[in-house]
Amino acid sequence: MAMTRVKRPTLNDLELSNGKRTRLHRLLYKYGPANGTLLLLPIDQGLEHGPRDFFVNPPAKDPEFQLRLAKEGGFSGIVFQVGIAEKYMQRYAGEVPLVLKLNGKTEIPSDKAPLSPCLASVEDAVRLGADAVGYTLYVGSARQDEDFMQFRKVREDADRYGMPIIVWSYPRGEFIDAKGGRDSLYAVDYATRVASELGADVIKVNVPKINPEKDQAAPKPYNTLHPTREEATSMVVESGGRALVIFSGGEMEGDEDLIAKAKLTMDSGATGLIFGRNMWQRPFDEALTISRQIRDMMMDYGA
Amino acid sequence: MAMTRVKRPTLNDLELSNGKRTRLHRLLYKYGPANGTLLLLPIDQGLEHGPRDFFVNPPAKDPEFQLRLAKEGGFSGIVFQVGIAEKYMQRYAGEVPLVLKLNGKTEIPSDKAPLSPCLASVEDAVRLGADAVGYTLYVGSARQDEDFMQFRKVREDADRYGMPIIVWSYPRGEFIDAKGGRDSLYAVDYATRVASELGADVIKVNVPKINPEKDQAAPKPYNTLHPTREEATSMVVESGGRALVIFSGGEMEGDEDLIAKAKLTMDSGATGLIFGRNMWQRPFDEALTISRQIRDMMMDYGA
Amino acid sequence: MAMTRVKRPTLNDLELSNGKRTRLHRLLYKYGPANGTLLLLPIDQGLEHGPRDFFVNPPAKDPEFQLRLAKEGGFSGIVFQVGIAEKYMQRYAGEVPLVLKLNGKTEIPSDKAPLSPCLASVEDAVRLGADAVGYTLYVGSARQDEDFMQFRKVREDADRYGMPIIVWSYPRGEFIDAKGGRDSLYAVDYATRVASELGADVIKVNVPKINPEKDQAAPKPYNTLHPTREEATSMVVESGGRALVIFSGGEMEGDEDLIAKAKLTMDSGATGLIFGRNMWQRPFDEALTISRQIRDMMMDYGA
Amino acid sequence: MAMTRVKRPTLNDLELSNGKRTRLHRLLYKYGPANGTLLLLPIDQGLEHGPRDFFVNPPAKDPEFQLRLAKEGGFSGIVFQVGIAEKYMQRYAGEVPLVLKLNGKTEIPSDKAPLSPCLASVEDAVRLGADAVGYTLYVGSARQDEDFMQFRKVREDADRYGMPIIVWSYPRGEFIDAKGGRDSLYAVDYATRVASELGADVIKVNVPKINPEKDQAAPKPYNTLHPTREEATSMVVESGGRALVIFSGGEMEGDEDLIAKAKLTMDSGATGLIFGRNMWQRPFDEALTISRQIRDMMMDYGA
Amino acid sequence: MAMTRVKRPTLNDLELSNGKRTRLHRLLYKYGPANGTLLLLPIDQGLEHGPRDFFVNPPAKDPEFQLRLAKEGGFSGIVFQVGIAEKYMQRYAGEVPLVLKLNGKTEIPSDKAPLSPCLASVEDAVRLGADAVGYTLYVGSARQDEDFMQFRKVREDADRYGMPIIVWSYPRGEFIDAKGGRDSLYAVDYATRVASELGADVIKVNVPKINPEKDQAAPKPYNTLHPTREEATSMVVESGGRALVIFSGGEMEGDEDLIAKAKLTMDSGATGLIFGRNMWQRPFDEALTISRQIRDMMMDYGA
Repeated sequence: MAMTRVKRPTLNDLELSNGKRTRLHRLLYKYGPANGTLLLLPIDQGLEHGPRDFFVNPPAKDPEFQLRLAKEGGFSGIVFQVGIAEKYMQRYAGEVPLVLKLNGKTEIPSDKAPLSPCLASVEDAVRLGADAVGYTLYVGSARQDEDFMQFRKVREDADRYGMPIIVWSYPRGEFIDAKGGRDSLYAVDYATRVASELGADVIKVNVPKINPEKDQAAPKPYNTLHPTREEATSMVVESGGRALVIFSGGEMEGDEDLIAKAKLTMDSGATGLIFGRNMWQRPFDEALTISRQIRDMMMDYGA
Repeated sequence: MAMTRVKRPTLNDLELSNGKRTRLHRLLYKYGPANGTLLLLPIDQGLEHGPRDFFVNPPAKDPEFQLRLAKEGGFSGIVFQVGIAEKYMQRYAGEVPLVLKLNGKTEIPSDKAPLSPCLASVEDAVRLGADAVGYTLYVGSARQDEDFMQFRKVREDADRYGMPIIVWSYPRGEFIDAKGGRDSLYAVDYATRVASELGADVIKVNVPKINPEKDQAAPKPYNTLHPTREEATSMVVESGGRALVIFSGGEMEGDEDLIAKAKLTMDSGATGLIFGRNMWQRPFDEALTISRQIRDMMMDYGA
Repeated sequence: MAMTRVKRPTLNDLELSNGKRTRLHRLLYKYGPANGTLLLLPIDQGLEHGPRDFFVNPPAKDPEFQLRLAKEGGFSGIVFQVGIAEKYMQRYAGEVPLVLKLNGKTEIPSDKAPLSPCLASVEDAVRLGADAVGYTLYVGSARQDEDFMQFRKVREDADRYGMPIIVWSYPRGEFIDAKGGRDSLYAVDYATRVASELGADVIKVNVPKINPEKDQAAPKPYNTLHPTREEATSMVVESGGRALVIFSGGEMEGDEDLIAKAKLTMDSGATGLIFGRNMWQRPFDEALTISRQIRDMMMDYGA
Repeated sequence: MAMTRVKRPTLNDLELSNGKRTRLHRLLYKYGPANGTLLLLPIDQGLEHGPRDFFVNPPAKDPEFQLRLAKEGGFSGIVFQVGIAEKYMQRYAGEVPLVLKLNGKTEIPSDKAPLSPCLASVEDAVRLGADAVGYTLYVGSARQDEDFMQFRKVREDADRYGMPIIVWSYPRGEFIDAKGGRDSLYAVDYATRVASELGADVIKVNVPKINPEKDQAAPKPYNTLHPTREEATSMVVESGGRALVIFSGGEMEGDEDLIAKAKLTMDSGATGLIFGRNMWQRPFDEALTISRQIRDMMMDYGA
Repeated sequence: MAMTRVKRPTLNDLELSNGKRTRLHRLLYKYGPANGTLLLLPIDQGLEHGPRDFFVNPPAKDPEFQLRLAKEGGFSGIVFQVGIAEKYMQRYAGEVPLVLKLNGKTEIPSDKAPLSPCLASVEDAVRLGADAVGYTLYVGSARQDEDFMQFRKVREDADRYGMPIIVWSYPRGEFIDAKGGRDSLYAVDYATRVASELGADVIKVNVPKINPEKDQAAPKPYNTLHPTREEATSMVVESGGRALVIFSGGEMEGDEDLIAKAKLTMDSGATGLIFGRNMWQRPFDEALTISRQIRDMMMDYGA
């Protein structure tokens, strides 16, 4: 199969309300790379995985670590849950844009039919001066219907307040496991389109993994596709349509692999990157160095 | 058994509020065939089936494809979910009428007891300038009660705003499977009446399939009826009463079969057709050709 | 056992608000027999059983059939779901009083723990000019708690708007099956009292069936009672207290049986009858004849 | 073990709002014994058990029986569900105080995890001129969480309107059965405290039954206590704290037993009694006699 | 492993709204030790465990006991459910600050998937003059999603009214049992971070117990950590970040053990202690003595 490189949509391509455009414009052109790309620093792992993610780099347990990193490392914004945002943002208000994550859960209960409950509202985001809200959508979960209805309220409020929505679009649950798994191209590609259909402005997905054996369980024609990694990410970006697609880093990787992966996704038409553990699981100086390397790399992708 | 051809109801036969009549009048007499028939182009498969429906015709992944097709091919309207409508309709506003689909789901979770959750509201439809809303009702699902209650809110809002409701009335779930299946005349005929009783203005159903073996599981007298295809569709149209009935195309078929099927349903008293994959799974020029053939055929059914 | 015939309560006996009394007065003294009795024509079987109930008399599929029958046959009112009421009542407004049925379901899903979800509101009834609302209460269902809470909202709204409530009080579900079944005197008698306690103004029940074998499973003393049919219906009417009790006809019966059954229930103190399939499953002229016979019989019961 | 007799709290001991104090004052000092004790006549068995509770005394099926008994027998108030209150109270308004029971259920469904759904609101009670509301709380039921949340709404409304709440505090469900049963001291004592913690003003409980065998299943130290009946009731009254405790009569008993039981509970510090079937399952004259005997006995407990 | 002692955050470190700061300031500097530490007396065991917790010291059944103890023993505040607060606080208003516990449950139903339903609102707390609200969060329960959504409403209301939230952050349910249990460092540490992420101002946890055998079931690296008790409590305090951490006493202990445990937690950076049964399960004079010993000890930790 042959695919052309996908052209990344710009703000002019999107049909945004004034409020959404104002805020997205700030994230894309006033902070971080400030060239139309997006580099986000998420710090919701304390809720999703617990404090154990900080053990390899204890100072990162204090959100000040990430705030300093976001400011000095040139990130476009930082992602917090409401409790952390309320406790830590004040001294960085205006310096580091806030993406308020609206829902979340712990890793403790079973993940067979996940749902991430809302812990905050779009109104909280407005009150806290956030430039976007984040929402984790578990596409394909047995509780997908509840998730969609919960998301609807977020989408309506975001339309009302002109607040951009970044959807963490995650295929999850036993049904997707039976169709090739959460990282398959089928899963990630579908999740991207779903987020766009439901009203995402920005879609955060993981880079799909091609696994010919597991992919046989996917619906056709995914079960017979053998795309390269770049073809796969291009397809995903394309499925986002007029929503901006950003890719996550996932677990900690080496510097070169990380930058290569980052370039590949940007080459595929991604608008940006959201790197958490890959950044703040390093000592501050190293984290700053790699952050700046990533940001510098992104300067080539201005639009 | 002998059945007379069912006469299609016209706007004068229906007891519509001013708002509903105004909007339905636009769909029936100002766009598309514009002769009292309805030809709709649905594009919600990206959510219902995922991007894989676009693989046979990759350009169709971009909703611009369908919007151009709707405009140039002479459709009465296009059907979008809210996210797609917000991102793509602006440049076609006024050119292509919008039917805002209010609910939807993915194909990933189990389909044993389906429910299609609302992703948007009638107010969204008003805000977006839509001329109708769409709602998928899973008649007979174990979660039918939730579905009916969800629909009730839509019906009330539609009454308040004068917004026509098109119900995708789909028999689904394990109980209907045990009574002859979702495509049986029993199932489709019942689903049509249910939609009318609940407040549909337009009812979208699939053409029933006569399957003497499976039909034995249906309640009497359906288990002993052996209607022709036209008799079956006529019965269904009649069950819609003063709701307009339109038939869908289902999976991709050859041109002749498609047009024959379309004529048969129109002959049975249908008000129109809703053809998606049969249209946009073809290259643009072919899609345009078949669209126009369908539309031309429909010119014979003016009223 | 010996029971005295129960005296039917009149409007003067009831403690009704002005709104409820105004509307009930119209149903009892201005339409149909107009002598304080009630003769209702229900047409919700299209939803409850599907179009198959119309097959023995195809013209009855069109609600115009029942509306004409209600008008010419001298019924006190007609019972419709909201979708049918909106589509068909306009040309009969003021001629045939409307009882808006607020909840309903299909026969497709399991009936082990039934709940009939609300499809319309008391406000819809006010808007449509109805003189009463109807509500199906599944007494004893495992979902009885949800049903009671749903009914509460209806009762509150009916109190607010002065709208009489007719409760279809139906014992249902596996628990009542284990205690002698839905038609036992225990079941029907209990259901009648429940409706009165919850706030019904009129209670619609089926005639209890005495089945000494099955009745052994009923709680004492019902398990040892052997009332005549008239004693049983008298007990039920008495359990309604200051709510008016009306009996249904159930499945199609012969003329003589039907009239005998009707007289028996009126003799027992019933306020009226609600006959559906027994009326409209006959050709129009026959339906008209039997309707008038019933109505004439009811002229003996004025009060 | 040795316990001192519990002193009954008076209105001056309680921290009541003006509205609650006004209404409780009426019940305690203006009707019935009118000496600070409470004698209530409940008539919700038609809903809870069905008409069969009336078979031993058929006239009691008519709520007029109980209203006359309440008025002539000197009861402090009568307890009705909303439907009965609306239909029967008007001619006794001001003569017999109303306690509006807000929730209720039938005996038909399984009692493994009971919940008594609300059928009326505190606003209904205000509208109907009631002096208190009644609420059945199933302490320990698997659905206790729903019950507590439902009660919270009642408590909030009662605080808003100054309406006293009488909680029927009933240990129920499979979990309490496994810990010694619903009538154990553990169960009744706990239920009393729970009602007080949740906001009851008056708590209605059954007299605990000491059953050394079953009590072994109770948590310590209840599993080794062997209190006398009076000690047990005193403990329960004490657990009510500043909520008034009243005891119920339960199933029909002989006159002497009943009065002995009544005295015992009053001696234990109870504020009053709520006797239903023990009263109205007798012919009117006998019911009147026993009612007056009870009331006369209560004259010794003025405070 | 080596850990530095955690510095306790002061009010100046926190980013509190005026309302929250005003109320927390009162609790920290105007009542009890009044030196920036917190000493709370909880009395919700009557609901959580039943009256049996009072049997070792019967006078403690009367909340007056605890109110006197709180006042004379120098506590910073008392914790009550709404029913107890309404009945007992009036005569201590202004003397003993109230922490209104918003949710609670009994010990009777299964604890496999616990949820503690809300019994009161932040508005109740405002009305009753409370200086904080308490909320029990069952981290890791299968019903965690409902819990989080219920908490969200509390957090929003607390933000609106400037009311500090004290979260009883309790790991519970079968999933945490399978990962080392509710008292493991993994569990307590995670629960602390969760409360902070969700919006707690003060977090109440139990002292973690190091159990090398059970800890093997915890996710890494907790399964291989062997911290001292002080290291463990320090980690937990640190995980609270800018939320104040207080430790509970749990079941009754001897004086010396209790004070040693109290000092250890204060040394670890805790802001305070919440001791219930360890206080009021003693005769009043003894309770007063130990309370004052604790308070005196806390005078060393002023800040």
